[in-house]
Amino acid sequence: MSSETSRIEAFSDGVFAIAITLLILNVQVPPASASHLAAALTRQWPTYVAYLISFSFIGIMWVNHHRLFNHIRRSDNGLMFLNLLLLLGVSVVPFPTALIAAHYYAPGRTLAAAVFNGTYVIIAVFFNVLWRHIVRGGLLDSATQESAEAISRQYAVGPISYLICFALTWVSVPASLIMNIALAVFFAIPARMNAQKHAGRMPTATK
Amino acid sequence: MSSETSRIEAFSDGVFAIAITLLILNVQVPPASASHLAAALTRQWPTYVAYLISFSFIGIMWVNHHRLFNHIRRSDNGLMFLNLLLLLGVSVVPFPTALIAAHYYAPGRTLAAAVFNGTYVIIAVFFNVLWRHIVRGGLLDSATQESAEAISRQYAVGPISYLICFALTWVSVPASLIMNIALAVFFAIPARMNAQKHAGRMPTATK
Amino acid sequence: MSSETSRIEAFSDGVFAIAITLLILNVQVPPASASHLAAALTRQWPTYVAYLISFSFIGIMWVNHHRLFNHIRRSDNGLMFLNLLLLLGVSVVPFPTALIAAHYYAPGRTLAAAVFNGTYVIIAVFFNVLWRHIVRGGLLDSATQESAEAISRQYAVGPISYLICFALTWVSVPASLIMNIALAVFFAIPARMNAQKHAGRMPTATK
Amino acid sequence: MSSETSRIEAFSDGVFAIAITLLILNVQVPPASASHLAAALTRQWPTYVAYLISFSFIGIMWVNHHRLFNHIRRSDNGLMFLNLLLLLGVSVVPFPTALIAAHYYAPGRTLAAAVFNGTYVIIAVFFNVLWRHIVRGGLLDSATQESAEAISRQYAVGPISYLICFALTWVSVPASLIMNIALAVFFAIPARMNAQKHAGRMPTATK
Repeated sequence: MSSETSRIEAFSDGVFAIAITLLILNVQVPPASASHLAAALTRQWPTYVAYLISFSFIGIMWVNHHRLFNHIRRSDNGLMFLNLLLLLGVSVVPFPTALIAAHYYAPGRTLAAAVFNGTYVIIAVFFNVLWRHIVRGGLLDSATQESAEAISRQYAVGPISYLICFALTWVSVPASLIMNIALAVFFAIPARMNAQKHAGRMPTATK
Repeated sequence: MSSETSRIEAFSDGVFAIAITLLILNVQVPPASASHLAAALTRQWPTYVAYLISFSFIGIMWVNHHRLFNHIRRSDNGLMFLNLLLLLGVSVVPFPTALIAAHYYAPGRTLAAAVFNGTYVIIAVFFNVLWRHIVRGGLLDSATQESAEAISRQYAVGPISYLICFALTWVSVPASLIMNIALAVFFAIPARMNAQKHAGRMPTATK
Repeated sequence: MSSETSRIEAFSDGVFAIAITLLILNVQVPPASASHLAAALTRQWPTYVAYLISFSFIGIMWVNHHRLFNHIRRSDNGLMFLNLLLLLGVSVVPFPTALIAAHYYAPGRTLAAAVFNGTYVIIAVFFNVLWRHIVRGGLLDSATQESAEAISRQYAVGPISYLICFALTWVSVPASLIMNIALAVFFAIPARMNAQKHAGRMPTATK
Repeated sequence: MSSETSRIEAFSDGVFAIAITLLILNVQVPPASASHLAAALTRQWPTYVAYLISFSFIGIMWVNHHRLFNHIRRSDNGLMFLNLLLLLGVSVVPFPTALIAAHYYAPGRTLAAAVFNGTYVIIAVFFNVLWRHIVRGGLLDSATQESAEAISRQYAVGPISYLICFALTWVSVPASLIMNIALAVFFAIPARMNAQKHAGRMPTATK
């Protein structure tokens, strides 16, 4: 991690941190005139589900971004701009999150869910494009370069999974949301298992 | 503090800083049509109290998070995800803060206060889960590992205190808010006294 | 600048940066139904003035905070909490800024301006309390410790100036705003001149 | 990149990151009562265009800011304040972006577009003023000082281009927006080509 990449990371961390924290602004407080606050709070469960999915997605995205940049030894302009493209995707997330929350009970539910799930397809694609640029541009440190093929296969699962989730929207919106939650859990768990394998190498890399 | 943990800290600092600063957006400006601005500003005192409690809570949380990470010598994936869970709790805070502010004079006051106080119970539990993972995973530097038991006892007070505060909500909402303020003051003061004891060791740790 | 203080700075920078950037959310976009956009935009000049005053104030505050922490060689808990108190003041700024902007043409103008100018008195006091704690606690590097008295006198001007500005509110709201602008310019310029004197020492301090 | 400039960068990165991420709050979610969500979403295309232009502009601005500060070897107060002026411009961006989005179909369209395009003229000027101060004040490292003239010529294109775009507003608002998009693409591409030329020198500078 050179000073060259460290400021890209600082900026990226900022965007991730802000996008993930802004999400809460979409969780509306029922008006004081609401006669049954408990009912009003319960009824907006899609808001909480959308919030949790988006928080998890951005959080996992950040964990992977963090891991990626730990293995980059130099930066180029392609990296800078593809990273900006990824950040564009991440900072858009509060909009589809608010959209599905507001339209879950409305006629536009399917479209809102499609925009929501579709955003994740696009971000997953952006992440893969960034990763491929890093691998092909030889921006990785040599140790990681060797295992790059394995990681590439792993990352390729993302866009395909979210594409299935996106298609599922037209079959059943609740099913697509459940699959979206399942994907968040899935991507969180294998990452953990991968890490155990990395554990022995990591300290060497950071020393 | 290795470069491994420094980016987790940077991201965490970002989330803490944003959550603590976003709180002010919940403090509503009375409309220009309000005939008596002084009365309108005075009447929304629950908003200011909720703001101050939440600001203090996140601030103290950050101080403790800062202190914790000063003694971590390496990171693992459990740390990464449990830290994200803590950040989820912290970034949710603006919602219950706005909820109690909006419903203090409404029929849903008790429920709103229960959500408000309950959020702090959950965050205090998350903080303890993170701490226990750090201790058991051997992520601490050796000097701190020795005194870990004492710190564990100190941190365990948090969830219990906030649980009492949470239960108090159904007895009296104002009493629960006063206890919440008292807890913020209490957790700020012993931390200061602890620090004096640490003072001799800290410089060694940071050199 | 040790790693001990560097995370306090990172968190503080975050709060300053967010507070200063959130200010723009208070600048309302006239509704699309406004027949004369030019008139609507012109009419809300108090919003722009309040925005510029608050932006300058937080900006200058940050410059001074930055300069202060450049000369701190170690941290203690008093510093941590007094710094949090200063950040509380800074992150409150968007509220009085929105208040004066919304009530400039309303009966509550004087009160709104008093809250606006009064906030700056409080923040200036908080900054002085922080500074005095740093000097008396011996947290400064030795070179700065010598010139601490001179800097103390300079900083003491802040609360007094803003107190006069605050008192002026009841004489004339526009006059108090003009004095507030003048203070921002005044505090920006001597800082620059001070810097020339520091210029020879600064590189030594940072090497 | 000394510790002197690194905190200015951290603060600047914060402001850039927040301003770029706040932009999404201007993208309104159509109300749940909207009978045709698809039509409502399509109709607000000017919002998306304004969002993308502003995101690209701030993103490119950040890339250039990043590149600039990579070559600065020391800081002075002029740099601090001119940098604050640039950040003022950047943090204002969400306002004109919301303005053009809200008034694209309203009578105030031309004025809203003029404010939008005019903001970019001003920011481009601020960036040039900052750059010239850096060059004339001898704040650059020696290698960059030599090629400063070439970079100055390149940067001077910014204000002129945005001035033409600004003038174009009164001819045709859509044309001015298209030129604005073209400028974002243009400034992104030559930067990339420049970078290739820098590629050999960069690693030396950061080592």
